[in-house]
Amino acid sequence: MEKQMLKICALQMNVSADKEKNLTTAESELLAREGQMDLAVLPEMFCCPYESSLFPEYAEEEGGLVWQRMSALAKKLGIYLIAGSMPELSEGKIYNTSYVFDRQGRQIAKHRKVHLFDINVEGGQYFMESDTLTAGETFTVFDTEFGPMGLCICYDIRFPETFRSMGKKDIVMAFVPAAFNMTTGPAHWELSFRMRALDNQIYLLGCSSARDPEAGYVSYGHTILADPWGQVQAQLDEKAGVLMETVDLDREKKIREQLPLLKHRRPELYA
Amino acid sequence: MEKQMLKICALQMNVSADKEKNLTTAESELLAREGQMDLAVLPEMFCCPYESSLFPEYAEEEGGLVWQRMSALAKKLGIYLIAGSMPELSEGKIYNTSYVFDRQGRQIAKHRKVHLFDINVEGGQYFMESDTLTAGETFTVFDTEFGPMGLCICYDIRFPETFRSMGKKDIVMAFVPAAFNMTTGPAHWELSFRMRALDNQIYLLGCSSARDPEAGYVSYGHTILADPWGQVQAQLDEKAGVLMETVDLDREKKIREQLPLLKHRRPELYA
Repeated sequence: MEKQMLKICALQMNVSADKEKNLTTAESELLAREGQMDLAVLPEMFCCPYESSLFPEYAEEEGGLVWQRMSALAKKLGIYLIAGSMPELSEGKIYNTSYVFDRQGRQIAKHRKVHLFDINVEGGQYFMESDTLTAGETFTVFDTEFGPMGLCICYDIRFPETFRSMGKKDIVMAFVPAAFNMTTGPAHWELSFRMRALDNQIYLLGCSSARDPEAGYVSYGHTILADPWGQVQAQLDEKAGVLMETVDLDREKKIREQLPLLKHRRPELYA
Repeated sequence: MEKQMLKICALQMNVSADKEKNLTTAESELLAREGQMDLAVLPEMFCCPYESSLFPEYAEEEGGLVWQRMSALAKKLGIYLIAGSMPELSEGKIYNTSYVFDRQGRQIAKHRKVHLFDINVEGGQYFMESDTLTAGETFTVFDTEFGPMGLCICYDIRFPETFRSMGKKDIVMAFVPAAFNMTTGPAHWELSFRMRALDNQIYLLGCSSARDPEAGYVSYGHTILADPWGQVQAQLDEKAGVLMETVDLDREKKIREQLPLLKHRRPELYA
């Protein structure tokens, strides 16, 4: 019998150019809440400014400094830790990578952002991740005592197939370290989280960095938890903050019984 | 060069138990707007109360009375007419079917609802289409001088695959004759139209019947036009009314260039 009540913590932290300071922020904020959570999530690029030109400089191989500190933090707290994302160096390439550690600090999953964020909105946001990053090739699910959970990064949420591809394992929840901006955030952030949660009948958590108006890329913030009925269970504003919520998986089961969207799919007909 | 400005009309009409009265309503409302539209849409089950037990009684074969009247109406007005939907009798089975007529009144497409609506929300809506209806087996696209357009019916919108399956033909717009109810309407109607439009970078029109609080199934109304940026361009309230809007396909092209979601898909990786 899987556990049905899950305590989660999402840290909407300020990200600076000082890697050590970013690590210390993540550690101190989570340690201050020891015993209050089963699972914690950090933002996309939580220890590196979100600028394509800086990714090579901040990149580390798997098992490097940031990895070690996050593994140790998960073990110390006895929680699942989704360590936001960071630039991962591997065979000369750089990926936007999220590591997942279990309660013993063991890496149990790793997601490399599959859809790179290249955008050029007239009078709005310009950004080209593909200038320095390489895209991942797989979708990511990890197992917990609460059930299987999905993981993707920011722009991956734009594609319904991301969740359908995870969903083959019947995930009960998914996490999205992210950093929408001041063009796409107000227009699409809440809409996207609500709808992916509704379509896939899951709880869906998006963890953003806090907004820094002086940064090269201004993050929207608004760390959010959407429920399987497509409602916002909780949402932060743009400032640094912590979202702590309890997720009720019994409620999810009831919703799936009453409006059986997942059962009504007709995959044999889909293109 | 395809035309870029498209005038559409969606008729949120009252539906009664009197088939002839429903037909006359559709005809008179559209004829009163002759010359003002390229395309018109009617609601789901526009000539039959939305009750499973009544579908057999109101069902007609393709080419029957309702079909003939709608074909003649399209020809008279010189418009594309998406004739909402109606119960279609075919080889002893009944489908929830939408016919599309061109400016000469010729049938150019027909969609049979692929996902049947079976719902049982505690303290909310109960409905079982599968009591009397058979599901369709194909997704539907039709060609116009504005580009290819998609068509589905109500509950089909719940499944992102509906639009991806249409999207193989690179549709520029899609239509959804529909009748959400007082449980799912307030919770999911606007959200669903906005997100499917955004994901598929199309204009998306949902045409509902008007709300009748005395009916067995109380329709939410709120006929809606969502744009490719995920915004509501226009929306009616619950009462009988007509939505008349111009759709700007040049704007759609710009959005697709600036935020190239369709290009960034990675179908080779999707499950």
